[in-house]
Amino acid sequence: MNELVKKDLKYLWHPYTQMKDCERVPPVLIEKAEGVKLFDVDGNFYYDTISSWWCNVHGHCHPEIKKAVRRQLDSLEHVLFAGFTHSPAIELAERLVSISPNSLEKVFYSDNGSTAVEVALKMSFQYWQNKGVTGKRKFLALDLAYHGDTIGAMSVSGVDLYNERFSPLFYDSYKVPSPYCYRCPAGKEKGACSLECLGFMEERLKESAGEISAVIMEPILMGAGGMIIYPADYLAGARALADKYGVHLILDEVASGFGRTGKMFASEHASVEPDIMCVSKGITSGYLPLSATLVTDDIYRAFYDDYEKKKTFYHGHTYTANPLACAAAVKAIDLFREEDTLRNVRMIEQRLGSFLEKMSGYEIVGDVRGVGAVGALELVKARSSKEPFGIKERIGVEVYKKGLESNLLLRPLGNIVYFFLPLCAKTEELDDIFRRSEKVIERVSGSGEF
Amino acid sequence: MNELVKKDLKYLWHPYTQMKDCERVPPVLIEKAEGVKLFDVDGNFYYDTISSWWCNVHGHCHPEIKKAVRRQLDSLEHVLFAGFTHSPAIELAERLVSISPNSLEKVFYSDNGSTAVEVALKMSFQYWQNKGVTGKRKFLALDLAYHGDTIGAMSVSGVDLYNERFSPLFYDSYKVPSPYCYRCPAGKEKGACSLECLGFMEERLKESAGEISAVIMEPILMGAGGMIIYPADYLAGARALADKYGVHLILDEVASGFGRTGKMFASEHASVEPDIMCVSKGITSGYLPLSATLVTDDIYRAFYDDYEKKKTFYHGHTYTANPLACAAAVKAIDLFREEDTLRNVRMIEQRLGSFLEKMSGYEIVGDVRGVGAVGALELVKARSSKEPFGIKERIGVEVYKKGLESNLLLRPLGNIVYFFLPLCAKTEELDDIFRRSEKVIERVSGSGEF
Repeated sequence: MNELVKKDLKYLWHPYTQMKDCERVPPVLIEKAEGVKLFDVDGNFYYDTISSWWCNVHGHCHPEIKKAVRRQLDSLEHVLFAGFTHSPAIELAERLVSISPNSLEKVFYSDNGSTAVEVALKMSFQYWQNKGVTGKRKFLALDLAYHGDTIGAMSVSGVDLYNERFSPLFYDSYKVPSPYCYRCPAGKEKGACSLECLGFMEERLKESAGEISAVIMEPILMGAGGMIIYPADYLAGARALADKYGVHLILDEVASGFGRTGKMFASEHASVEPDIMCVSKGITSGYLPLSATLVTDDIYRAFYDDYEKKKTFYHGHTYTANPLACAAAVKAIDLFREEDTLRNVRMIEQRLGSFLEKMSGYEIVGDVRGVGAVGALELVKARSSKEPFGIKERIGVEVYKKGLESNLLLRPLGNIVYFFLPLCAKTEELDDIFRRSEKVIERVSGSGEF
Repeated sequence: MNELVKKDLKYLWHPYTQMKDCERVPPVLIEKAEGVKLFDVDGNFYYDTISSWWCNVHGHCHPEIKKAVRRQLDSLEHVLFAGFTHSPAIELAERLVSISPNSLEKVFYSDNGSTAVEVALKMSFQYWQNKGVTGKRKFLALDLAYHGDTIGAMSVSGVDLYNERFSPLFYDSYKVPSPYCYRCPAGKEKGACSLECLGFMEERLKESAGEISAVIMEPILMGAGGMIIYPADYLAGARALADKYGVHLILDEVASGFGRTGKMFASEHASVEPDIMCVSKGITSGYLPLSATLVTDDIYRAFYDDYEKKKTFYHGHTYTANPLACAAAVKAIDLFREEDTLRNVRMIEQRLGSFLEKMSGYEIVGDVRGVGAVGALELVKARSSKEPFGIKERIGVEVYKKGLESNLLLRPLGNIVYFFLPLCAKTEELDDIFRRSEKVIERVSGSGEF
């Protein structure tokens, strides 16, 4: 074993990892990366089909982003962002406001998706208090939502595997069934329904809107809950309900933002304008930690007053608006225009669509779903019963291991094999990725290991 | 007004800022920085006496750290840290384990101080559950503690100005009075006590240890609570109590770590070895967002098991162990040796001590306290009564404004004027900073504005 990998196992505890598994499958030591490929220390390559946890946009080690960070390194690496400001943060805020839904006018920075969500929740909560409406102290979320790993974000999330254990630390929130079409909570069939599932949300709002500060949801694409992709009309319906019952709509675009679903932000699929929007991941094209919470002017104004009125929003992190990260993000946004990125996503969507259709013919594939550069195969024991594989079968781990043998970074969410492709992927690369992926699924199907 | 500043006010919402105040005091537009100085767009300079929110260590735009980041930019900007690894993360983990207290053997990365604390709390909480001890679900914290701005971290914090409003979202935790010597909770005099304040903690543990997972505290230096500096014996006492009553000791070294108090970590003042330690801020010398939670092997082992046993720690952030940030951090740690940084802190401590002593002669100065490169003046209306200035007087804002006019970035915490100096500060720079600061205090004392 490589000496550095030995040291890794000696000193490190990896995120979302049962470290005992590393005995059999030690972490892959990556030395460099370029475009859609990662290269390990032995010279093997891996297609980064999940964009390194959904953040890479324009490809690894993009020369233009590198240049932007280098330039920033020469003048200002960091300065605190209270009382002080700098051009990368300002230029980025201007761009964010310009590319985001019209409703959003102000930008509050933080460091990662979890903190962007905590900021959003706290802002909504304090908004009502600043307005003198003291009863609105709860949030409504979807039961398979994922909004982050800090306690405030977990409290509005619902993936049991991650959350259940910590529930004694959560504040109360309302959860309603998710629009998970393959396993419809209202017992309907995909494509043959009248969005009955939206009824769950309305019912709750009708009863409890007086206690509810905001509805929070991932627009169109529910990531860690299983790459659930739901109809745009559901999102439009949620916006209408939020308006009808007088609560904020917070959209968590951490995973779906920056072109991943084919639009700059997923809310555009439904022409929905949120009150608050959270972004991170793709914001720096996968270069550096950064996030932002965007809000309407109405929300901003509710905090804007004489100091003694005690309406100030007390939240901040040391590295808020880090100039190096902002410089990377400014360039990453400009590249959408310069490289016509969204056009490439249309090409990706088309090819991914054909691949998914083909894969839907496999007995092990219960459902396929896709939008933009995101596609998922839900693996099942039997298509007729939709029976999922159990925790012992660890089918996802088989896919992961066989993926690595086939030069693919595939990292299924349980039984959901998914692609979250870098938006710069070229046709030949896609063809190669899909060819290799099909072989992996074939091998897993026929392995008889479950 | 500069066009960029106008855009700042149009698009941005700054952390910890009443944006209405920006009408009168617009944010200073910083263009570049070097060593202990920030330079604005008009060519004015400001001494960064608070190390840009306590994170800068070796000075702004340090050529060696810049070189390290540049080098990393050429090979690998980022890769997900589950299943994959890279040399900057491994080299940094090895260094962190080597410089931290002996008890700590494993490193878990995240992005900022708040998340490092959330990780620590969640690990302690799950540790007991993994061990089958289900009742230990609460934390014990100090009543003036500050551990971060996410809900989980806020729940164990106690600065009312920031927290009170959000308390309906907090989980229950135990708070005991802080060892705030100037305003002793046990009614004793500074330097003439037997640490009676430690009794509050013991009392609580005696009664509730069966429900308590961990004691969390900032060692020696309580930052946002008012730069409270407490005796090393209190920390040693807390360690002994944690052992006696069977709870973890979590030390939050986010502010105090990396040499700021004169030792690499503040726990060394009391020769205390924590079960869990949180670090951030100075870890990258103020370059890039990064944090880490270090744990004992005992804690690590409680999570290490067959996957089906469900002991895995499910926590992670997209940019965990970002290679660019890790590369900066590796160099930042090496610089401590290469530049003999701790020796310079001894020089700073000495000069700062003389300055504080001198300042204690001013009627407006109720208390002075200092350790390493950190010093504080607590301003009061009258020394005899220790009566604090009120919110309307905003004495801190006066100091801030007059500081800017005197080329100083001073950012008091309410009535506490403090210095949190970059560890690279030179004698001439310190002399100049203290001379200017004295004038600011003189002007504020005599301004008759309160």
